[in-house]
Order: sequence, then structure tokens, then C-alpha cells
Amino acid sequence: MERIEHHASFGGRQEVWRHTSAALGCEMKFGIYLPEAALRGERCPVLYWLSGLTCTEQNFITKAGAQAHAARHGLIVVAPDTSPRGAGVPDDAAYDLGQGAGFYLNATQAPWAAHYRMQDYVAEELPALIERHFAANGARGIFGHSMGGHGALVTALRHPGRWRSVSAFSPIVAPTQVPWGQKALAAYLGEDRAAWKAWDAVELVQAAKERLPLLVDQGEADEFLAGHLRPELLRAACAAAGHSLTLRLHPGYDHSYYFIASFLGDHFAHHAKALGED
Amino acid sequence: MERIEHHASFGGRQEVWRHTSAALGCEMKFGIYLPEAALRGERCPVLYWLSGLTCTEQNFITKAGAQAHAARHGLIVVAPDTSPRGAGVPDDAAYDLGQGAGFYLNATQAPWAAHYRMQDYVAEELPALIERHFAANGARGIFGHSMGGHGALVTALRHPGRWRSVSAFSPIVAPTQVPWGQKALAAYLGEDRAAWKAWDAVELVQAAKERLPLLVDQGEADEFLAGHLRPELLRAACAAAGHSLTLRLHPGYDHSYYFIASFLGDHFAHHAKALGED
Repeated sequence: MERIEHHASFGGRQEVWRHTSAALGCEMKFGIYLPEAALRGERCPVLYWLSGLTCTEQNFITKAGAQAHAARHGLIVVAPDTSPRGAGVPDDAAYDLGQGAGFYLNATQAPWAAHYRMQDYVAEELPALIERHFAANGARGIFGHSMGGHGALVTALRHPGRWRSVSAFSPIVAPTQVPWGQKALAAYLGEDRAAWKAWDAVELVQAAKERLPLLVDQGEADEFLAGHLRPELLRAACAAAGHSLTLRLHPGYDHSYYFIASFLGDHFAHHAKALGED
Repeated sequence: MERIEHHASFGGRQEVWRHTSAALGCEMKFGIYLPEAALRGERCPVLYWLSGLTCTEQNFITKAGAQAHAARHGLIVVAPDTSPRGAGVPDDAAYDLGQGAGFYLNATQAPWAAHYRMQDYVAEELPALIERHFAANGARGIFGHSMGGHGALVTALRHPGRWRSVSAFSPIVAPTQVPWGQKALAAYLGEDRAAWKAWDAVELVQAAKERLPLLVDQGEADEFLAGHLRPELLRAACAAAGHSLTLRLHPGYDHSYYFIASFLGDHFAHHAKALGED
């Protein structure tokens, strides 16, 4: 494991690390913000951010303004890349399949199955690595944007007890029902649609054993709202299942990091409260 | 003039505009943040940000987290590109000369003199354009980073009464005495070093008629500190001239936007107070 970037930031430090992932069979990078308390060795909760299509570990750490909030609440924030990477990893020319589009699942189909195990990476390998090497206290929250909002919801719903808090910006809530999701699920999991349901938040919430409250922010001027995101499907599923959901629709806001930055403070407050750091 | 980007942000709107500049003889882009009050037509002060070497109008608006502060204080923030641009504009293969490296001066030497008039652009043409087209109340502040910190200091010092407030992050305070500055001044102004002094903050502060207080933040782990920035020269010049300077040195901080973001709130408070919006 090698540290390849470090920058003082809001009294703490933003770092980027490179390591070899066993789950993914390739080199991976992740960003990690260490608040001042963590630099002193005090153990802190960890909040995991999952980015959207085409992103790397850089987008969130450079564009969201997250460090100010992480410093204020004393939270470590980890932002992994969105897929396996490298010359030996299968790819596709489209932006919404292959490298940059891992969809936070474990693929079962050729040529993807060998490397595309992002669910194992974000739910297991990465938290274990972080808790071994940094001043983490074992409390975990997870959030993300778009494909990463899907990733956060699905990862939390699939692993009851592993996460204390979850939230999402502009998530793909029902990949089995929208073009981005259907393309990815068909490629990574094959044509048997029954297998897709294990990676769909709207499906998972209906059978959820744990009632982790969901916080979702969505811009109403988001160009992908009607085609790919469809938060009304999550609202209906949560209502039917009696699952707590705070869904906020924001007039005028789009799909960009300008939207994320505008409401990120509320998400940090949501997670900090659950993680015991408010 | 054409709006090419717009994003809702912190209750206001981040926009990017393209227009033809008479001073520069080319198309230029600038970012402008309009707080909610300005969108309602209420006239607001304008804070101008000048970026550093290699930057465009995008760096500050995507990486600094400025919109949160601008919204809180009710300030319009304008971020122009750092030089003239385009196929018809002279350039150089180096990152520190030509396009991306305008140095906020008016060039006198071939081939630069026809287009490289960034001082006229940022001190005159751009404020006039902003005050004609947006809800500006005529109060102006200026700040910037690195080459843009030099630009902010020099532009304020050269135009007494035009700016109510000025500040800088990691500025080139004495371009006549450091390699980045000497290279640019020789190319744009020629070998007569007497002409260089009109573009050097350390020189200008010694003869300043107006005592605009200077706020300067500098990271002590900045890789360019000893070679190109040398804030101690500004400290000595201000002490000798009796010019008010608040120079803050921050252990561990580098030259990046992580540094800028960490202390940007203090700069907004400094400007808002002078601009009557604290």
C-alpha cells in the first residue's frame, strides 16, 4: 500500500492511496480524508462515498467540498474508485459499461466475472483495509451519487448491521427498470432477470430485515431524472414496506457536483448523528 | 454574450458565459456565481477571483467551495480565464508563458502585445461588462491565487479607489525577483527592467497612495514558496511603507486548492466586511 497524494486540508489531511485489491485482481486507488483527531490517533467513524458513472477516486475529493464537513464532525471519509482498472481488466467503449461503470456488484458473466467484484471490494475488502491501517473506530456509514447512490443503498440493504447510516444523491433506485441498470445488469449478471433483483434497492427494501432510515436528495432539473433515476419507485416501495425514507426534491438542481455540494452538509449531519459524532 | 453553463448552487446559480473581449481580441469565458438575492434582482457587491498558471475559468468554480461562502454573504463572484485563448492568439509550449499564463498585465512586445492585455480586461472591460449585465451594486473586491494572487495585488495597487478590498493566496509578490516572473516580464515587456516594476506588488506597495489593507495566506509546505513566492519580500516592503498587511503562514499546507478551500471562508469574511455585506 502506497500513499501517492497528501494535502493538508481543514486542519486534517486529504490523502490518496494505491493498493493491490485481492477482490478485484488489480491495482486500485482510494481517497481518504483524515480529520485532525484521526491524525492524533483518536479513533473516528468512517463514512464511505461511492461515486457515479465515469468517476474515479478524484471527483468527490476535489469537487464536493466534503473536507469542511468531515473536519467539523470528526469523520474519516473514504472515496474509492468506481470500478476495477488497468490494461488487464475488461472494458467497453461506452461510458456506462466496464471501467468507470462497476455498478458496485459482483459480476457472474464473462468477460467481467474475474475482476468486476466491486460489492466485495466496497462492503468487505476496503473497510477491512481501512480499519487495519487507519484510526477507525468500527462505526461505518455509506453514501454516494447516481450509480454510487445505487451502490450505497444496495450495499447497506444487503448487509444488515454492517452500516449505521446510509444516504444518496440522485440514486439509480431501480436498475432492473431503467436503461443504465438494465444494460449493466444484463452484461454483468446475464439475461436471467431473477438474478438482477439482488442488486436493486427498490426490490431489496421490500424484504429488508433492518429498518435503516434512508435519506435521498434529488434535483428536479436533473437530466437523468425521468429516464434513469425515478425516485418515485423508491418512495412507493418504502411506503409499501413501511421503510423510513426522507426523499427531498429540489427544484432547479441538476445532476452535478454543484447540487451535491449544496446539500452535502445535511448528509454529513445525518451520518454524524447515527455514527455518534454530531 | 452567451450563457454556456448554469447550475443551481446553494440557493443561487453558478453560470459560465462566453463573450468577445475587445481588450483581448478573442473569445473569453468567465464563471459567475449569483447568490439568491442577485437572482431576485437585488444589487450585490462583486468579488473577482484571478486564478493561477495553467488554470481556466473552471478551476475555482469547481474546486474551491466558494459558492457556500458567496451564498452566505450575498456576494456575486466572477472568475475569468487566466489569459487570452484561441488559435489566433500567440502561445508557447511552456506552461508558464502564453495561453494559461497571462500574468494580468498589458504586454508591449511582439508577438504578445496584440492580445495579452489581461490588466485592461480584469480591471476595466470585465467589471464594466458585469455591472452592465448583472445585478451588481458597484462595490468591488479582488482576490486570487499564485499568479492570480499577484494579479489581485497588482490590480488593486494600480487602481486606487476602484477596489474596496483585496486578498491573495500564495501570491507571486515580487515577479521582478523570481524565475516565473522574470521569464514572463522579459517576454511580455522586454528586457528593460524599469518597465517591470509597474507589475510588481513589492514595488507598487512602496509608492501606494491608497492604504488598502492586504490579507495574504501562504502554506509553509508550498513547493513554490522559496523559489517563486517569497512572501517575506512583501512583509518587508509593507513594513517599510507602513502599509497594512496580514500575512498568515500555515504549517503543512501546500499550493493546491485543498489549501485555498481551507481558508477561503476567512477571505470571504474579509471582503464581505469591506463590501458592506458581512
